[in-house]
Amino acid sequence: NSKLKIFSLNSNKELAEQIAEQVGLPLGKSSVTHFSDGEIQINIEESIRGCDVFIVQSTSQPVNENLMELLIMIDAVKRASARTVNVVIPYYGYARQDRKARSREPITAKLVANLLETAGATRVIVLDLHAPQIQGFFDILIDHLVAVPLLSDHFLNDANIDLENAIIVSPDHGGVTRARKMADRLKAPIAIIDKRRPRPNVAEVMNIVGNVEGKTAIIIDDIIDTAGTISIAASALIESGAKEVYACCTHPVLSGPAVQRIQDSVIKELVVTNSIALADEKKIDKIKQLTVAPLLAETIIRVHEQKSVSTLFD
Amino acid sequence: NSKLKIFSLNSNKELAEQIAEQVGLPLGKSSVTHFSDGEIQINIEESIRGCDVFIVQSTSQPVNENLMELLIMIDAVKRASARTVNVVIPYYGYARQDRKARSREPITAKLVANLLETAGATRVIVLDLHAPQIQGFFDILIDHLVAVPLLSDHFLNDANIDLENAIIVSPDHGGVTRARKMADRLKAPIAIIDKRRPRPNVAEVMNIVGNVEGKTAIIIDDIIDTAGTISIAASALIESGAKEVYACCTHPVLSGPAVQRIQDSVIKELVVTNSIALADEKKIDKIKQLTVAPLLAETIIRVHEQKSVSTLFD
Ligand SMILES: Nc1ncnc2c1ncn2[C@@H]1O[C@H](COP(=O)(O)O)[C@@H](O)[C@H]1O
Ligand SMILES: Nc1ncnc2c1ncn2[C@@H]1O[C@H](COP(=O)(O)O)[C@@H](O)[C@H]1O
Repeated sequence: NSKLKIFSLNSNKELAEQIAEQVGLPLGKSSVTHFSDGEIQINIEESIRGCDVFIVQSTSQPVNENLMELLIMIDAVKRASARTVNVVIPYYGYARQDRKARSREPITAKLVANLLETAGATRVIVLDLHAPQIQGFFDILIDHLVAVPLLSDHFLNDANIDLENAIIVSPDHGGVTRARKMADRLKAPIAIIDKRRPRPNVAEVMNIVGNVEGKTAIIIDDIIDTAGTISIAASALIESGAKEVYACCTHPVLSGPAVQRIQDSVIKELVVTNSIALADEKKIDKIKQLTVAPLLAETIIRVHEQKSVSTLFD
Repeated sequence: NSKLKIFSLNSNKELAEQIAEQVGLPLGKSSVTHFSDGEIQINIEESIRGCDVFIVQSTSQPVNENLMELLIMIDAVKRASARTVNVVIPYYGYARQDRKARSREPITAKLVANLLETAGATRVIVLDLHAPQIQGFFDILIDHLVAVPLLSDHFLNDANIDLENAIIVSPDHGGVTRARKMADRLKAPIAIIDKRRPRPNVAEVMNIVGNVEGKTAIIIDDIIDTAGTISIAASALIESGAKEVYACCTHPVLSGPAVQRIQDSVIKELVVTNSIALADEKKIDKIKQLTVAPLLAETIIRVHEQKSVSTLFD
């Protein structure tokens, strides 16, 4: 019966600490610093021989730094004779580079999968991949968790929201399955935002498929990055008669003008998870962050105890 | 007979341009930018189907950014049906992490070799690896070039240097072979700096093995990073009676206080190569930069024409 150890890297220490606390263990001791020339220096400061090691790291911004930290840590853990090297990647960066959209482009999401395997990962635990097909990019074991239940429960428990009149909105065609799952939990109908460009060089229009009149619209997405689409979508919903608009997503990338756009938008509240740590300047009242620590802790325990995790997937 | 194409990434564009000019080709067209969230976006903008592609990139600071650029570019080149994917890495970062110096450390130099292979590199061309053993970390073809001839020729052609009285100095035991090679070319004797700590918690002393009295000392190293050792070594040489001290190295990492230390040191001139591009603030009069473009261009041509490159190794 091998021992369980959880290590944190630098992307999301607070989440890693919450996970360790939920599991009931202290975080493993390691030092992850930089040499003078910027090269990453890692040393694991306790024995992990024969252990089931879990490394918690999101490949969020700075993505290349965080990814290299993870790869080097995997190498160190492997060489320290761990029994299994499990990487917990709440936010899997480069997921949107999952196919050749144009000729002569890389497929970086696949490259990253290969790099993790090459470094020595034996299992990967991820949350809401941008495309579920990315699971197939791995030859090692992968557990794909979803945040829909957590996000749904938040709205179910919020007494201020008129759930009788809720409608779940997918901001694009790709997200309809996710919206459907949330709608089932909230016993609500769905609507879809159908962006289209009427003619070339003419601005996109946001056509709403479904009746949102008088409704409380809840937009759900996997990633909110620059928040351009979501803030325009929210306005379009109001223009089409929605009473109020909430939004939620799993991964708050929130790059560039995102936070300002959310602030200025008609969105009443944006609910996100802590798959990506929010810098202090991104912590505004309108953004509510839920923790995925219990979900990840439960997964880690079940994987370690060789129990099924499949009930955590829906 | 496949076509030759040379692409530059962002670490060292000037060197890549010089190489392309020497080869007599324009650089291949590609765009290497960032998305709003910092993810690297690469697109190759000309057909490379069936070509011998050479990608020029040093994994110098910012090392993780430059390494990821290289890996993603390799992926894109491979998927664009190149016949061979050759990576020219004038400065191979993480080379000093080439063994476990302590327990539970990574061997990042080996990890990087594996990552390059996994991404799809079919051949690697490097210059003065920190340890020649790193060649064995690769299962793909590797050409290991050396800068000793270039550095030696600079001193041989410098009329101001009294070569009759020159002595080549290795700053540590590991560098004696390199110093010996330079000494052969300059027909000079060698000396070795023998750092030792007389007792624990007592400062290291620089003991010089060899007689430097009245000599023009030329220190040779592979990497100068923070320039701590080299500036102290230079002072020790003067204290031991050397007339003047020159220094040279292949890779001017020059991190942190390095440039100031060189400026303040007794070193008359530091000769380096352009394996690493120098930021403008590092371009001081005392530092003379030689180009390795002819050496790399010649290697690329010979590899492409399937001719031996071994005469370029000494
Ligand atoms: N980090 C990124 N930021 C913005 N767009 C991206 C990023 N990575 C990939 N993309 C682009 O997003 C598109 C894929 O997004 P999607 O259609 O939502 O799957 C592709 O055309 C990619 O070129
Ligand atoms: N980027 C770096 N900067 C400074 N020291 C390093 C770096 N990478 C590795 N090292 C250390 O340098 C030593 C190897 O240098 P050497 O003895 O010259 O081969 C090892 O103890 C490493 O921990």
